[in-house]
Amino acid sequence: MHKVDNFDLIKQISITSPSKIVLLVIDGLGGLPHPKTGKTELETANTPNLDRLAASSICGLTDPVGPGITPGSAPGHLALFGYDPVKYKEMIGRGVVEALGIDFDLKPDDIAARGNFCTVDNSGLVTDRRAGRIPTEKCAELCRLLEEIKIDGVKLFVLPVREHRLAVVFRGDGLSPEISDSDPQQTGVAPKAVKALNPQADMTAAIANKFVAQAKKILAKHHPANMVLLRGFSSLPSIPTMGDIYKLKPAAIAAYPMYRGLARLIGMQLLKTGPAITEEFYALKQNYADYDFFFLHIKGTDSAGEDGDFDRKVNVIEEIDKALPALTGLKPDVIVVTADHSTPALLKGHSWHPVPILLYSKWCRADRVGEFSETACITGGLGRFPATQIMPLAMANALKLAKFGA
Amino acid sequence: MHKVDNFDLIKQISITSPSKIVLLVIDGLGGLPHPKTGKTELETANTPNLDRLAASSICGLTDPVGPGITPGSAPGHLALFGYDPVKYKEMIGRGVVEALGIDFDLKPDDIAARGNFCTVDNSGLVTDRRAGRIPTEKCAELCRLLEEIKIDGVKLFVLPVREHRLAVVFRGDGLSPEISDSDPQQTGVAPKAVKALNPQADMTAAIANKFVAQAKKILAKHHPANMVLLRGFSSLPSIPTMGDIYKLKPAAIAAYPMYRGLARLIGMQLLKTGPAITEEFYALKQNYADYDFFFLHIKGTDSAGEDGDFDRKVNVIEEIDKALPALTGLKPDVIVVTADHSTPALLKGHSWHPVPILLYSKWCRADRVGEFSETACITGGLGRFPATQIMPLAMANALKLAKFGA
Repeated sequence: MHKVDNFDLIKQISITSPSKIVLLVIDGLGGLPHPKTGKTELETANTPNLDRLAASSICGLTDPVGPGITPGSAPGHLALFGYDPVKYKEMIGRGVVEALGIDFDLKPDDIAARGNFCTVDNSGLVTDRRAGRIPTEKCAELCRLLEEIKIDGVKLFVLPVREHRLAVVFRGDGLSPEISDSDPQQTGVAPKAVKALNPQADMTAAIANKFVAQAKKILAKHHPANMVLLRGFSSLPSIPTMGDIYKLKPAAIAAYPMYRGLARLIGMQLLKTGPAITEEFYALKQNYADYDFFFLHIKGTDSAGEDGDFDRKVNVIEEIDKALPALTGLKPDVIVVTADHSTPALLKGHSWHPVPILLYSKWCRADRVGEFSETACITGGLGRFPATQIMPLAMANALKLAKFGA
Repeated sequence: MHKVDNFDLIKQISITSPSKIVLLVIDGLGGLPHPKTGKTELETANTPNLDRLAASSICGLTDPVGPGITPGSAPGHLALFGYDPVKYKEMIGRGVVEALGIDFDLKPDDIAARGNFCTVDNSGLVTDRRAGRIPTEKCAELCRLLEEIKIDGVKLFVLPVREHRLAVVFRGDGLSPEISDSDPQQTGVAPKAVKALNPQADMTAAIANKFVAQAKKILAKHHPANMVLLRGFSSLPSIPTMGDIYKLKPAAIAAYPMYRGLARLIGMQLLKTGPAITEEFYALKQNYADYDFFFLHIKGTDSAGEDGDFDRKVNVIEEIDKALPALTGLKPDVIVVTADHSTPALLKGHSWHPVPILLYSKWCRADRVGEFSETACITGGLGRFPATQIMPLAMANALKLAKFGA
């Protein structure tokens, strides 16, 4: 299939209509066969609802970034939303994703960093990059202390994220994101001095170092969280939103900050939801009237895969299957069920394996695939294709793409 | 699927590890069904070992250059190694490939040409571009005579290749490869004068013409090899090696100069081997400990296809199948069996038909394909994809590619 390198064509032909698209992302869904049964997690799970949906859908397998490439979460999701994951991943800093993910209202000139509370020993060497994963409440308390730091010409926001993780936002004139990390990404060494990557960033590097120095003093008596590490300094990139490209009014239902941040960055409204699968499906129902595109993200499959817990991943998939009627009952015009990448329990991490996808619509031209599984999807009507093409397919099936050319 | 346009991404994520990849290239493997049986050469051959391997592999079909495009040997192999065949074919001259293929130590400023001994009549018109395919020994003898030619400011190397084929290397200051061929590529006409393609190449063109003129005198009494034709003047291109891109330590086992030359050009170590299939597999075993990537090239299938000899091609495939346990017995982490293009005996030449591929690894997510054949591979889990993506897939399956993006 042709690669969608830019959005020019889609922008030209996309139209707003009342039809609704639901993109259900089962994070890390794809797996590998269990040595004893020869069946993947998805093939092992009892999924009557997904199988029934697959039977009236068109199925296939996608490559999020490319064959052989194991995607991180950000590239995997960028591809799902139609954004070239290599091109846009370069443009999006981790600090920005982190700040947006906790609903911080980042301004165009703000510089955001991702931070960790960490433990340093008496010599100042990092002994634990995560400060023993302090509770989120402790993180919030320490962030309040750090927000008292005063640096001339800069307004500071120190924002708790989860456990040891925080985000720091610097607001002021003439700041630049072109500065290096203080996080050495390893233990046994001291935090690094932040350095300007070009002369225009000298002032920002000095400000970041002042912040770290003062934070060190304030945190000294808060062992194990007696230091802070910063990385991924970045500012809001100039990238098109889903509204710009697809003329959609999109909403995101996701419990984890990273996915919320990415969704917000490309113009989705973040909906309130609890972390449970049923809560996420409930959020969909509650907000169903108000948007025409829903990104519903479920994290548990990926976490179980990362933990190498085959059975737990199977259970999460079965739980999703049980919740599915809450989604199908809304009768969306288009339902896409897929993932951002595979996370086989056997590999205990993300992998390069292509991802099963089903696309349901009244106009999908269903194939003969009668169950939702990696093996069955091989012979699906969508074939094997880049994940960046899911959005044009979903839009077309929602009758939201006009004819190209007379 | 995404096209890998450049190596930036792969360079970023490739890692060196002890795992080993064997790429078995059965040249021209793909075929067309015999009119009487409806089976291709590969489908006709009795291949229990390849079939067993296919059953635990993921299979598919590749397009070396693109659907409908019949690849020459160089583009077909470039694609197998992950190099965009259109881009890099332009950069690699035939003279360079020929010289490297016979293990000549080409220097960066050398100009290499591919040559043929040929037959001319009394009027100087070419009557046989291959001089009746003189024996290789005769070729070597004539090359020694031609190497006596003296041209001011240039050191000459005249190198026998095989039968009527030779390579000529010009070494000196200020030489340029931007000169035209003397080979008219047809009979009944005189060899052409070599012309400079730009003013900087005037001197080199004059040198080449002097060489041809003196060669003509020397060869006059050596009918049928009474003249020489030169083409493909070229110098070493600046292209990334497989070490640069994949951080591999690669080795090539190939009997034919062209494949050896190409392999050496992209940084493979050329291993000593006899021409027989069993000798090539033996070379693999002998050198197995010392490299992490092996390109094993088998020519007989292509030669039989070119000759239109269906049965001989079947026999060569069966011979490879018999030798296969010598490869699988080494238990490489990744085994890829495929070809650089199809050479159907019915077409007596290379063709555009996609090429069957099997990829075996512990992590390959095997599909339901239970035999290695063009027809069975249609329903393989790899689908149909560009051959340039074989290397990323092989690297991923060898766990030699890190995650892209956090």
